[in-house]
Amino acid sequence: MKLLRYGPRGAEKPGLLDADGRIRDLSGLVPDLTVDVIERLRAVDPTTLPLVEGDVRLGVPVANIGKFLAIGLNYADHAREAGLEPPPEPIFFTKAISCLTGPNDPVMIPKGAQKTDWEVELGVIIGKTCRYVDQADALDHVAGYVLANDVSERAFQKELGSQWDKGKGCDTFGPVGPWLVTPDEIADCQALDMYLDLNGKRMQTGNTSTMIFPVAECIAYMSRFITLHPGDLLITGTPPGVGEGQKPEKIFLKPGDVMELGISGLGTQRQDVIAFDLAALEG
Amino acid sequence: MKLLRYGPRGAEKPGLLDADGRIRDLSGLVPDLTVDVIERLRAVDPTTLPLVEGDVRLGVPVANIGKFLAIGLNYADHAREAGLEPPPEPIFFTKAISCLTGPNDPVMIPKGAQKTDWEVELGVIIGKTCRYVDQADALDHVAGYVLANDVSERAFQKELGSQWDKGKGCDTFGPVGPWLVTPDEIADCQALDMYLDLNGKRMQTGNTSTMIFPVAECIAYMSRFITLHPGDLLITGTPPGVGEGQKPEKIFLKPGDVMELGISGLGTQRQDVIAFDLAALEG
Repeated sequence: MKLLRYGPRGAEKPGLLDADGRIRDLSGLVPDLTVDVIERLRAVDPTTLPLVEGDVRLGVPVANIGKFLAIGLNYADHAREAGLEPPPEPIFFTKAISCLTGPNDPVMIPKGAQKTDWEVELGVIIGKTCRYVDQADALDHVAGYVLANDVSERAFQKELGSQWDKGKGCDTFGPVGPWLVTPDEIADCQALDMYLDLNGKRMQTGNTSTMIFPVAECIAYMSRFITLHPGDLLITGTPPGVGEGQKPEKIFLKPGDVMELGISGLGTQRQDVIAFDLAALEG
Repeated sequence: MKLLRYGPRGAEKPGLLDADGRIRDLSGLVPDLTVDVIERLRAVDPTTLPLVEGDVRLGVPVANIGKFLAIGLNYADHAREAGLEPPPEPIFFTKAISCLTGPNDPVMIPKGAQKTDWEVELGVIIGKTCRYVDQADALDHVAGYVLANDVSERAFQKELGSQWDKGKGCDTFGPVGPWLVTPDEIADCQALDMYLDLNGKRMQTGNTSTMIFPVAECIAYMSRFITLHPGDLLITGTPPGVGEGQKPEKIFLKPGDVMELGISGLGTQRQDVIAFDLAALEG
């Protein structure tokens, strides 16, 4: 299934994408799209659901995300590009849940930012509690896969102390969606093509096959330190081609830019880059 | 007001502490203790509320904490003790919300841990959205103050890569409470005595007057990077005397230890230290 949430920010309704790529409304069946309702939806015949007409906004495809965790430097080709040694074990950090935003919402450059950057990433939504989980069992704990953009402000992240949180959790820095795709539709989460275009030019090209620590290992490793609960979101690192990796000049985002990104089977995102704008956040 | 939540883990009820130090039940008035109900409770005469008899467990005193953020190295005397330069601007990091636990619940040493440590801290619960807040206005955004123990595993925190998350968010690493104390009861949040005893011996002694960045500055600074929402919890650093600062030998927690800590006006906590125990978490 491809599950989603549509409608105005803060008032999204649950929906699913039918076989013809049309949105069907689930709000007659479930109050919202949360991890606990997914199995129940398997019995539903999408053709019996109301069609959602028109061009609707998409929200983050799952409600009540508790924690938003992220793996750093997890692609061998990205590490090579950056001239860095692959880490001996996964690096992880936290993105503030307040940065979550819909897949096609504008991305805002924070006040004072100079080095705002992009990172296309594979995300997983946790379906079952993960605490000291074995790698062999880890993928059984996944409720679904999502496309994410780990938007990052490099000066905030790296030039204001050792911890990355300052540059990772700014408002709109976490576009997620368009869909939560259930694992039965993803034959192999380590064989997914991914890309990101800036203003129509391909910047990132990768495949999840070059992850240093595959998804199952990331989940198992993380669960030794932090217990993952249903509804938590884990994003798993980015392939080569981020702005700070560009040669001869680094490239950072500016108002007017457009990011378009995608992962095979997980859909696409498109974000207009804008300056900080409170109305855009609350609208 | 001193507001609290009492009862079994996951089934806490809202309550308040009356003038005689007894718990009164609020569950007839509000479904749970969340930031949005606090103002409404000011009109309540505590003597009209049902008394809660017996020795009840206390939970985290506010429900639905969205983000759990923490300031590092924020006490001048602690920085001196550690031989470190005071940071030029606040350092902050994230504690996983899944580590939150009641003020007197056991603290569990994670599997494989060797260097589990304590940190008594002043916490603030955010009452109003903070986004680019001025320092002069910051304290108007506080719903209440809490006592917290920023339990930390130093090897996980510092020896497994640059980011501290691995050692800060383990299950039970976030005891908070006993009460949320509303700001009208705290004349000056920068003049609070604080202490932590290990097995009856005083280890930490401090006062919030030695903070490098006062609470208002921490909130204002953080709000330039991460938007704080009602119900978010910010803890503000620890004074001297943590285990890794002990001379001539560092001291770390082991099963059987007892931590007792307090901050003037905010009550006390007492935690038995135990080995990892799933039943203790779920019980």
